Amino acid sequence: MNLPKSIEINEVVLRDGLQLEDKVLTIDEKKALFDLLVKAHIGTLEFGSFVHPKLVPQMANSGEFFELISQTAGQLKLIALIPNLKGAKNAQEKGVKKVNFVFSASDTHNQQNVQKTTEESLEELKEIVDYCKEYAMVLSVSIATTFGCPFEGEVKKERIHWILEQLTPLHIETITLADTTGMANPQQVYDLISELKNKFPEQSFNLHFHNTRGMGLANMLGAIEAGITRFDASLGGLGGCPFAPGATGNICTEDVVHMLHSMGIDTGLSLEGLIEASQKLQQLVGHVTPGYVLKAGPYDRKYPVPAAK
Amino acid sequence: MNLPKSIEINEVVLRDGLQLEDKVLTIDEKKALFDLLVKAHIGTLEFGSFVHPKLVPQMANSGEFFELISQTAGQLKLIALIPNLKGAKNAQEKGVKKVNFVFSASDTHNQQNVQKTTEESLEELKEIVDYCKEYAMVLSVSIATTFGCPFEGEVKKERIHWILEQLTPLHIETITLADTTGMANPQQVYDLISELKNKFPEQSFNLHFHNTRGMGLANMLGAIEAGITRFDASLGGLGGCPFAPGATGNICTEDVVHMLHSMGIDTGLSLEGLIEASQKLQQLVGHVTPGYVLKAGPYDRKYPVPAAK
Repeated sequence: MNLPKSIEINEVVLRDGLQLEDKVLTIDEKKALFDLLVKAHIGTLEFGSFVHPKLVPQMANSGEFFELISQTAGQLKLIALIPNLKGAKNAQEKGVKKVNFVFSASDTHNQQNVQKTTEESLEELKEIVDYCKEYAMVLSVSIATTFGCPFEGEVKKERIHWILEQLTPLHIETITLADTTGMANPQQVYDLISELKNKFPEQSFNLHFHNTRGMGLANMLGAIEAGITRFDASLGGLGGCPFAPGATGNICTEDVVHMLHSMGIDTGLSLEGLIEASQKLQQLVGHVTPGYVLKAGPYDRKYPVPAAK
Repeated sequence: MNLPKSIEINEVVLRDGLQLEDKVLTIDEKKALFDLLVKAHIGTLEFGSFVHPKLVPQMANSGEFFELISQTAGQLKLIALIPNLKGAKNAQEKGVKKVNFVFSASDTHNQQNVQKTTEESLEELKEIVDYCKEYAMVLSVSIATTFGCPFEGEVKKERIHWILEQLTPLHIETITLADTTGMANPQQVYDLISELKNKFPEQSFNLHFHNTRGMGLANMLGAIEAGITRFDASLGGLGGCPFAPGATGNICTEDVVHMLHSMGIDTGLSLEGLIEASQKLQQLVGHVTPGYVLKAGPYDRKYPVPAAK
């Protein structure tokens, strides 16, 4: 296996993880989690989103939360999700310097999220690019439903190629290919990434997987083998899927880091610190989260030999 | 990715899956599950074990169960786990024709299971080989703790090489490398299998993974890439780990089959049939099982587009 020496994790629990929770966390609760993530050496964090508070009340305090955490952020990269130009403006007004614009590869999913076709969102992106330039904001882009749409089913590779052809002239630093509802498989991931990296060799990619159908880490392995070294992950595997009750969420940060470290791949993160943060997360959301290592312990934990019967 | 066209699954729910359950299933309950597995086109089944009934009461009715199911088994391969020569004899007396002898690569784990060192179990294996020849029984072998021991920690690759050197002169048709408590990672799996296949090119291998730390399907992918086309799996992901409460069990048959089919790899199995059997399993054991596809549905399920708000 041809594996990299290190992989970078973008922690998304404060955004993708919390946005489907019944309980809306307060600023102080989010700050307690943030402090533990910093203690675990998280370097990149999607801290919230600037979307309509009626649509996602869990994220309504994102601006206020940013004002609090940015005071002590230091070198930490703090990224806000935005679904449109208005989101970019609201983020800018709070002093946010890094935003991630999300739209969907499938029209039906994009219509559901932002009442626009994919092409309309790509048009709006041009305005966002200009706006971010004006305010010296760093802009990244996520393409939701890259590997499949829960409404339309298959999303053809040609459509992702076409979207990339629209995006690359805009010089977006990082483009995230997102398996929004956990439909991807490792072969599909490996093939699509190999094609895109070949066709757009200058473009930096990040991958976003959900573990909805248990394939999250296998898909990550497929992506790593295709040369990807940046991934989104969510503490505790929090996240879920609005269409599949009981389905689990994003790939779980501590499980991802545990696998990578066991394979000799560095992440710069402290597994122990992540487990501590994940325990706190369970307390805060008030339910068991879907991660594995929190329950089973790391692979190198030794158990006492039972006494002879 | 260099993937095979087809993969064979050995269903182990009736043995590895049920042996840790609080509820002991009756013959009739096992038969109901068996019938649904046959309906889903299962071709190979570890149906039970011949171990001391005081140690594993869940398996005490394995002989009686075999007498029932063997009447209608047809081409189905019915395999019984045996931990020693006595197990082989008990299986033979019930008419069982295929047995799988299990011992552990680590002495401490083997001592816990069968009060013998690994070397002592290898000695006993020679008697079992002779016994099986005499009674025209097919003998396979599983090496537990191949990728790590919960008591000793790391199991060195050299030890697995040494065990294989003892086994190959015995002409065992299939040797299972078992990650008994879910300690393996994909890199380790790929490396060890590549070495063993290179050194023992005539030997047929089967792989047995647990999803204890969420890496089950990623490990399977690593094994497939190293050329493995036979795997154990357990319906619903039933199995567990006696040392880690709350930890999940074997890789889940329907999740495995779902991943393989989505990658275009044939298994001969019906995913729909497995899901039906897995629903029945949940009823029988009386709790939610750890599999994913049962909760989320297959990747190609399309959801209705919500009405405009």
